[in-house]
Amino acid sequence: MPSHQEIVERLRAFRSARDWEKFHKPKDLAISISLEAAELLEHFQWKSDEEVQAHIKRHREAISDEMADVASYLFLLANDLGVDLHAAMEAKIRKNEERYPVETARGSARKYTEYQ
Amino acid sequence: MPSHQEIVERLRAFRSARDWEKFHKPKDLAISISLEAAELLEHFQWKSDEEVQAHIKRHREAISDEMADVASYLFLLANDLGVDLHAAMEAKIRKNEERYPVETARGSARKYTEYQ
Amino acid sequence: MPSHQEIVERLRAFRSARDWEKFHKPKDLAISISLEAAELLEHFQWKSDEEVQAHIKRHREAISDEMADVASYLFLLANDLGVDLHAAMEAKIRKNEERYPVETARGSARKYTEYQ
Amino acid sequence: MPSHQEIVERLRAFRSARDWEKFHKPKDLAISISLEAAELLEHFQWKSDEEVQAHIKRHREAISDEMADVASYLFLLANDLGVDLHAAMEAKIRKNEERYPVETARGSARKYTEYQ
Repeated sequence: MPSHQEIVERLRAFRSARDWEKFHKPKDLAISISLEAAELLEHFQWKSDEEVQAHIKRHREAISDEMADVASYLFLLANDLGVDLHAAMEAKIRKNEERYPVETARGSARKYTEYQ
Repeated sequence: MPSHQEIVERLRAFRSARDWEKFHKPKDLAISISLEAAELLEHFQWKSDEEVQAHIKRHREAISDEMADVASYLFLLANDLGVDLHAAMEAKIRKNEERYPVETARGSARKYTEYQ
Repeated sequence: MPSHQEIVERLRAFRSARDWEKFHKPKDLAISISLEAAELLEHFQWKSDEEVQAHIKRHREAISDEMADVASYLFLLANDLGVDLHAAMEAKIRKNEERYPVETARGSARKYTEYQ
Repeated sequence: MPSHQEIVERLRAFRSARDWEKFHKPKDLAISISLEAAELLEHFQWKSDEEVQAHIKRHREAISDEMADVASYLFLLANDLGVDLHAAMEAKIRKNEERYPVETARGSARKYTEYQ
């Protein structure tokens, strides 16, 4: 399996060969992440939980493609901003462990800002 | 640096300890990816290229946090659907290498569907 | 009740008094529509149909505010592009009446591109 | 020009004739607003201000269509929740007049939460 860094290298090589760095301003990459996230969400539009499950079975590759698109733009933005994405995720998990203590958060979808 | 699989394990442990799997239906995870992508994009709203660069310098941690949020929901959705995200990304890069041959795509932001 | 044109006049006067036209480039207005739509959607994140109904009862004003925000940026963008939004909506309804004939579309959530 | 209420009536008649009310749960309508907003934003992806202007000239109808789609789902959601959209917009403008006094806000894109 390719590592995160290997994937980022592949994305950079793909982009560089096409001279696309000039289009990849942070704002446009963030727009693209948002648009690809919408294309992913479109797969689940109008569907009940059961219909979602059936749809996933029939359209696994298309859904994987959309997830790959979101990830690709996200990994490139992180690369361009010099952000170590996995380190940022670990830091955010630690932050969330404080915001959402197990005993308070268990089984509840409330946002931490709604805790009193 | 934690590997992709280690990060996914951390996310699953965090979720499982809080009994949140029941909220994490594919449709709701896709909504969350979209909402976090919007929070990331909000950092660049109304800003010129120069203002974006200045904003990134001053708000690096907040921006990293939003990227981590998008990635966290995306990694969990991939985990739940049994999708190997890095393999999906590699497959998508290969697909894009065919859609966007270097000689046609170089320096152009056109979508492959607009090639004649 | 204020008419569409009266609302647009109010929005333009509000904007003009603050000298905000310079920020309201079409791309930034479209970003803002998308971000406000995400804030509206956030109200329904993680919630079942029943929980959505309960949430609407308790947060009607906040939800109305988010809908107003989407509409405000949309009305301003239409104004700026010289698009008559109501006429565009009527044209789109006519287009959809052809794409989705009653006998084919009744009770089905399929997209017209999936009709054979 | 059709009034807001006439447009809402057209949308309701279109929906009712196809028996689509059952799909139009608030959460799914909010998803749809978000997805259509993304399709609108896609028109401006990767483009500079000048390229946006050129694109608008060549694709006015497609852009109008996307704006009409956002508005259609928004008007239906407001209808379904019993929200008077124009009244909500007027109320929000008044709120924003307090949050953004002319003398503080003039020429500045700062959010009111960043005023000290």
